[in-house]
Amino acid sequence: MTAPLHETRPGTPDTQQGMRRRNLSRVMHSVATEGPLSRAAVAQRIGLTRAAVSTLVDELIRAGLIEELGPQRPGRVGRPGSALVVSRRGPAGVGAEVGVDHLAACVVDLSGEIRARAVRRVANRGRAPGPVLGELSILVREVTARAEREGLRPAGLAVAVPGLVARGTRTVVRAPNLDWHDTDVSALLETRLPLSVDNEANFGALAELWLGDGTPADFLHVSAEIGIGAALVVDGRLLRGTRGFAGELGHVPVRPEGPACPCGGRGCLEQYAGEEAVLRAAGVAPGEDRVGLLAERAGAGDTGVRRALRGAGSALGIALTGAVNLLDPRAVVLGGALSRLAPWLLPSLERELTRRTATPADGVLVSRIGPDGPLLGAAHSVVRAVLDDPAMATATATATATATAGA
Amino acid sequence: MTAPLHETRPGTPDTQQGMRRRNLSRVMHSVATEGPLSRAAVAQRIGLTRAAVSTLVDELIRAGLIEELGPQRPGRVGRPGSALVVSRRGPAGVGAEVGVDHLAACVVDLSGEIRARAVRRVANRGRAPGPVLGELSILVREVTARAEREGLRPAGLAVAVPGLVARGTRTVVRAPNLDWHDTDVSALLETRLPLSVDNEANFGALAELWLGDGTPADFLHVSAEIGIGAALVVDGRLLRGTRGFAGELGHVPVRPEGPACPCGGRGCLEQYAGEEAVLRAAGVAPGEDRVGLLAERAGAGDTGVRRALRGAGSALGIALTGAVNLLDPRAVVLGGALSRLAPWLLPSLERELTRRTATPADGVLVSRIGPDGPLLGAAHSVVRAVLDDPAMATATATATATATAGA
Repeated sequence: MTAPLHETRPGTPDTQQGMRRRNLSRVMHSVATEGPLSRAAVAQRIGLTRAAVSTLVDELIRAGLIEELGPQRPGRVGRPGSALVVSRRGPAGVGAEVGVDHLAACVVDLSGEIRARAVRRVANRGRAPGPVLGELSILVREVTARAEREGLRPAGLAVAVPGLVARGTRTVVRAPNLDWHDTDVSALLETRLPLSVDNEANFGALAELWLGDGTPADFLHVSAEIGIGAALVVDGRLLRGTRGFAGELGHVPVRPEGPACPCGGRGCLEQYAGEEAVLRAAGVAPGEDRVGLLAERAGAGDTGVRRALRGAGSALGIALTGAVNLLDPRAVVLGGALSRLAPWLLPSLERELTRRTATPADGVLVSRIGPDGPLLGAAHSVVRAVLDDPAMATATATATATATAGA
Repeated sequence: MTAPLHETRPGTPDTQQGMRRRNLSRVMHSVATEGPLSRAAVAQRIGLTRAAVSTLVDELIRAGLIEELGPQRPGRVGRPGSALVVSRRGPAGVGAEVGVDHLAACVVDLSGEIRARAVRRVANRGRAPGPVLGELSILVREVTARAEREGLRPAGLAVAVPGLVARGTRTVVRAPNLDWHDTDVSALLETRLPLSVDNEANFGALAELWLGDGTPADFLHVSAEIGIGAALVVDGRLLRGTRGFAGELGHVPVRPEGPACPCGGRGCLEQYAGEEAVLRAAGVAPGEDRVGLLAERAGAGDTGVRRALRGAGSALGIALTGAVNLLDPRAVVLGGALSRLAPWLLPSLERELTRRTATPADGVLVSRIGPDGPLLGAAHSVVRAVLDDPAMATATATATATATAGA
């Protein structure tokens, strides 16, 4: 993801062109989040003159990013304003996800609507990256083709993976639960689209930020598939860390002399609250939809499962005490698989936070997006990039039009 | 500290005036960090035309923020450029510090030079805030008067305190080592200057960022006076947390069932590596300059003291393992009192990080600024505010001139 355009670097001078690009973005964001809006309403919201906004809107209409619904408020006094909405046939974001147990792809349009989606259950653990990403390419082609038939123009592909991705690259440095090391996704995934790759916890947190109901702009997002990941959002931005490795909550020491962890440490959170540890403590055999099974048994009153989840909640609480003391987030949000287990994790988790006086201002929230977060976050990251810099999409549209006209 | 001006909020439109203010700031920063510079050199560095830069420079000269040294390079071909430097008689930053054992104040000019400084040893623990801040007011007046006699114009006062300061306020929510609670510093400190108040660990980290020799723009700064504090700098900015309470490394659980901590938790880092815990483990009686005493004895080979510092280093290493996993900073910097004890803390600290595979990219560095960090960071925060928004200082200078002319 590129930095939002309204942030300029200290070394770069302000220019008229940069200002125009930022104002185009303001119009797009305004229409996308609050539309349908008249030109006058947009002008009022972003604090520019109606004339300035009209020039910007015309440009966005020409580029196919905004549409006019035609005159509104018929029969009322005064000149009716034509309502603006983001285009249903404009650029779209393609998201894809490599899970330990599944592959998924989807297309989201500028309004945030999911226009195509495909999921396949596959046991990916231990499979070589080539075949996995080959299979994912097919899913991506499938949803992309469906979206194109509806007149959408896929603007980019973002892939969520359960592993560490080196910042600014498309290389999975390590994904222990897939057994991938230094895997360059761009070399193995067949696509013509601009490609970005990121950790599933990061995309999950972004989904929460962009799509969550009342999620604050500062929070620590904790999620789990097999491992436990976290992502910190500060002032609406993801804190990625120097190498892109921030958020490794699963390897925060809970008991420094506890059981050895494959990471090289001892007593890491994953040794108490990771999926394998919980299944073992609960006496549940690994198999398909393990999280669903845990939730079902806990719901049915299985004391062994409930005790295991209580223990996991306590360990999460201890690790989060450290995180809350360090970061002072407004809230902790439990996402991914953890959101399904929240009823049994939360009491012991919150007890640890409270007795160690490390309660975040807004407490511990449970994500409503849950396991869909990484896939939706990925697709929306492409959509946000278009909203953040519509001038890019404008340029592409113009270039394509010129090329087509010339052919 | 206000946010740097080159960052505009999404909701606010760009204006010509905002652009002018940001470009004034770019000129100031350029001259302050790289001066003496000719106008042409400034233009080249910030990417504006020479004409545009000249207009901005003239404005800054009129406001007394920049001075011309007169023609340079005499005898060489071409029109000689007049070298620009920041004014030695311009606005200045006043910093002050409330320590557990001392009070201090200093004045720093726009070039970063310390122009006045005063320190007083006082045992402040348990004293009421009123008398402590009254005494600090006297020190501040002393250094301010000295600076004014040299023609400087103090632009603001920043006070470092060993406690939590609610974000955006001047209220010390709690400072356990002073026994202060909800202390509004602005009500008790006598000053005509614009006042800001922040945690000493935050100012220490900012000093490291602004004045450190090769300090990266992403690091976790760990410091200690009596308690242990930390501050995270990301992309050259301090991560303050929602309430301003980020950086409470001292209350990260190291051993979750360890000794009770006054914070309400158990086994917090301060119970192993805080000054009291170390003095107790070393069998050293509390008294004056305790850190100096520990350093002296450790240096003389005292095995009890060395063992105590080794234990503290291990505990720091465990807490930092969590922090590095969560935040992926480029470096950990040991500042404040910890920098003086680094030779005996570092080996065990680094051993924990290494065996738990949580080594930051640039490793663990020792601050060269050390215990001076909070005071210098405070004074420089005022200087930076002037460099970040010289238009404010321009306006003030003009207003003062007008008022004087009218009197």
